[in-house]
Amino acid sequence: MQKSKIPRIRLLIGDRVALGPGKASLLDIIDKTGSISAAAREMGMSYRKAWGLIDNINNDFLEPLVIKTTGGKGGGGALLSNYGKEILTRYLDMEKKANVSIASDLKWFSDRLSQ
Amino acid sequence: MQKSKIPRIRLLIGDRVALGPGKASLLDIIDKTGSISAAAREMGMSYRKAWGLIDNINNDFLEPLVIKTTGGKGGGGALLSNYGKEILTRYLDMEKKANVSIASDLKWFSDRLSQ
Repeated sequence: MQKSKIPRIRLLIGDRVALGPGKASLLDIIDKTGSISAAAREMGMSYRKAWGLIDNINNDFLEPLVIKTTGGKGGGGALLSNYGKEILTRYLDMEKKANVSIASDLKWFSDRLSQ
Repeated sequence: MQKSKIPRIRLLIGDRVALGPGKASLLDIIDKTGSISAAAREMGMSYRKAWGLIDNINNDFLEPLVIKTTGGKGGGGALLSNYGKEILTRYLDMEKKANVSIASDLKWFSDRLSQ
């Protein structure tokens, strides 16, 4: 993954990342492709790693965000539950809102970061 | 450290945490105590771990935020450079600003997080 100098935000619970840019991308690609394998490939990670992240996300929230489906051509796939879609949409909106409110600070910081 | 259900934000550069709640607390305590050991103790981490984090912070920005001092009673201490103070103040202001702008979202998320 390319290293960007533009600062981003993460949503933490205590010291743990509940949802951040990486997990949000993972959910987004699963929603679009219906496949954890495809999402893992696109994110440049193993299936095992992707599934581990999804398992964490599912456990961190009150209801599962990702549901495994079985059967069909090429075996099982995965989809975002309505709950998952709601969480993802809200997260992306929130990220956007926060980024707008601190846009000048993020610019200020990016000017002070080394390579 | 107690696990809080209130979501917080972190400032990322690419995939790396440039500055987050933990590093900000570390800088803040060094500023108040003039000692990395004291800060490490208060944060419940080893001196080595604290120094590693500080070394990362110093490298992630264009100028060092923490400066080691030598001599004096009890050996060397540490202090925040003016640059470090400026960064810390701006980070805390930014965190506050972002938290205010997304306060309702953070509440929404905390209602949906499991223990």
